[in-house]
Amino acid sequence: MGTGKATHHEGFRPLITLNEARACDDSDPLAHFRDRFVIPDDVLYLDGNSLGPLPRATIDANRDLVERQWGDRLIRSWTEGWMDAPARIGAKIAPWIGAAADEVIVADTVSANLFKLIVAALRYDPARKVVLSEAGNFPTNLHIAEGAVGCVPGAELRVVPRDALKGAVGDDTALVLLTHVHYKTCERFDMPAWTARAHMAGALICWDLSHSVGAIAVDIADADCSVGCGYKFLNGGPGAPAFMHVAKRHQERFGNVLSGWMGHAAPFAFTDPYAPGLGMERWRTGTPSMLAMAAMESALNTIADVDIAALETKSAALFDIMAAAGDAIGLECTTPRDPAQRGSHISFRHPDAENVMSCLIARGVIGDFRTPDILRFGLTPLYLKYEDVWRAGAELVEEVRSR
Amino acid sequence: MGTGKATHHEGFRPLITLNEARACDDSDPLAHFRDRFVIPDDVLYLDGNSLGPLPRATIDANRDLVERQWGDRLIRSWTEGWMDAPARIGAKIAPWIGAAADEVIVADTVSANLFKLIVAALRYDPARKVVLSEAGNFPTNLHIAEGAVGCVPGAELRVVPRDALKGAVGDDTALVLLTHVHYKTCERFDMPAWTARAHMAGALICWDLSHSVGAIAVDIADADCSVGCGYKFLNGGPGAPAFMHVAKRHQERFGNVLSGWMGHAAPFAFTDPYAPGLGMERWRTGTPSMLAMAAMESALNTIADVDIAALETKSAALFDIMAAAGDAIGLECTTPRDPAQRGSHISFRHPDAENVMSCLIARGVIGDFRTPDILRFGLTPLYLKYEDVWRAGAELVEEVRSR
Repeated sequence: MGTGKATHHEGFRPLITLNEARACDDSDPLAHFRDRFVIPDDVLYLDGNSLGPLPRATIDANRDLVERQWGDRLIRSWTEGWMDAPARIGAKIAPWIGAAADEVIVADTVSANLFKLIVAALRYDPARKVVLSEAGNFPTNLHIAEGAVGCVPGAELRVVPRDALKGAVGDDTALVLLTHVHYKTCERFDMPAWTARAHMAGALICWDLSHSVGAIAVDIADADCSVGCGYKFLNGGPGAPAFMHVAKRHQERFGNVLSGWMGHAAPFAFTDPYAPGLGMERWRTGTPSMLAMAAMESALNTIADVDIAALETKSAALFDIMAAAGDAIGLECTTPRDPAQRGSHISFRHPDAENVMSCLIARGVIGDFRTPDILRFGLTPLYLKYEDVWRAGAELVEEVRSR
Repeated sequence: MGTGKATHHEGFRPLITLNEARACDDSDPLAHFRDRFVIPDDVLYLDGNSLGPLPRATIDANRDLVERQWGDRLIRSWTEGWMDAPARIGAKIAPWIGAAADEVIVADTVSANLFKLIVAALRYDPARKVVLSEAGNFPTNLHIAEGAVGCVPGAELRVVPRDALKGAVGDDTALVLLTHVHYKTCERFDMPAWTARAHMAGALICWDLSHSVGAIAVDIADADCSVGCGYKFLNGGPGAPAFMHVAKRHQERFGNVLSGWMGHAAPFAFTDPYAPGLGMERWRTGTPSMLAMAAMESALNTIADVDIAALETKSAALFDIMAAAGDAIGLECTTPRDPAQRGSHISFRHPDAENVMSCLIARGVIGDFRTPDILRFGLTPLYLKYEDVWRAGAELVEEVRSR
């Protein structure tokens, strides 16, 4: 991981000029995607990793959902596309994570889906009782795991620092629970290596893809299960439905403890005993918001033709511009300089980060403050121009220098 | 309960004439509410108890949410009203169930909220292990209870017929789980009597208000907790967020097993250990869909000035019109004739109910078929005219007579 000193660090290069940034925009093969989003004129939005912007198509999709499907078709819409939405939209997420279409479903929230999977994993091999995760993981993962281990007698949540994880995977490990890209530092786990390591120890692995899906190439390969968020890089809207994936080989063995009627084998048979639905259907719980589902589907349609390799290339270039800005003022960058070791945001430490971010927002540059000392900027190649990131970097330099 | 024979049953009266129905509409004190909803011209919509129609104000509320709050304000909206929405909207539901404003929160689905409350109730007094519910309860209640008892060692779900419930409440009962108005028959439990009975036995009680809230007067009084649905009589839209209530005296003792970050005491402190939020905040789990929340809030604003007593009076009158239609063709009505013993829908048995309902829908009368032999019609006084129900009754008579 780089220290961010603006001297001879590998990967450092001086800030490009504004004209050079504009030239990059002129030859950017992704430039036309920007028009598919509503990007307010008054801000530089480097917060797509917290809430992706509104896809233009979603305005009409949402109006159609509300006015035609709900207003006019009413209850009839349940058989005209609503009932199948979780699986249909899940299939549109599948290529973004390297899963098969019938291994993904859209449902509930990341938190609820983690709960389902952790309990299922703990029941898979009752001899294994430990859920292993990383200190400083995104909090809901640890909070939910606390709740889930309380539901399985003898189960335990073990949280260790990243550098102690390897030594902690053992024959008591039921589940390794990792977040692919760290929400704060942007460090990326080596997914194939960690999946292999968990399997070698006889454990299952669950990946949280919230900060990677839609931003970088993800190949879930033979991981057992995963969850992910719809409202960040997938642009599904505030509180968009989350998704979850279960490898086909586990689908008939994993059970859903949140055994609601929508996951029943025959929801409209209205029978008293629960019987799990086939495949991913069993992971549904209650009735999903169709307003939320329609926005999610429209967002996925908006990016269906995006080349993920082009995203990664541009993301790396945007990173370099922002990193150079941080370097120029001596900020410590907590994000790895090697693109293969990170996601698509960049974070710097600053002792007065909360104030710095407030002032940046007042200057029209929207990023995130993350406690206690992190300035975080989302780099979303779909709709950010090189010029945007150049300007954001210049504002960061000016703001920090002014203090 | 009435048998529905069209002879001398108490409460039977002959079908009024169409002109009389129109006269009722002319003097209906609720008539002006209809204009607040989008009611398609081509159908008689007697299915508001499955999916309430679109409130006109929701069209603009939804557009504002999507285009201004999301599209323009982006992440800033979280501090401009989004974060507080679950409690703020919960407070708008509170008067509909007789709870205090700070006893209700809007979150997740009925199924997820039931799960949270059942586990909390089972942990309340570890000496009590039984969740008691009714055979034929709305299926998700029983399905979710199956999942929840599996999370508490020694816990058990006991499902008995309605007439055996009284004898089954005992000193092993942790929780009595009842649905206030039955989704199929429309029978209503005597809420004060059952709450008292549970408490007398030292048990907790949880009411599912999905088929009563917004349709009839509900006074949760000293019940321990309850859940309810936003998409039926509250008109919050397909898959609207659900709500839950916990009596203030339990709020610091009940814990949420679905311990997600949004229910944390300080969600943005990002600390590893979970610490429950104050009051109802702890019942939040993941990030809620703000599209769904906005539609829910708009729906509640739409009906904020409705007089529930007037609703009940009109509901009873609409019931009589529809009941008389059923009587005229000898259908068995499974719904009690005494308004105090029912909710706001009416159900008839017909051996070929599925086909009859298909044909009625083809005639433009939308109700529900409920397996195996139930024709169900929602009577929603806010936007149904007397004439609508008269016409629906006439179509029912014609359809059944034609067979």
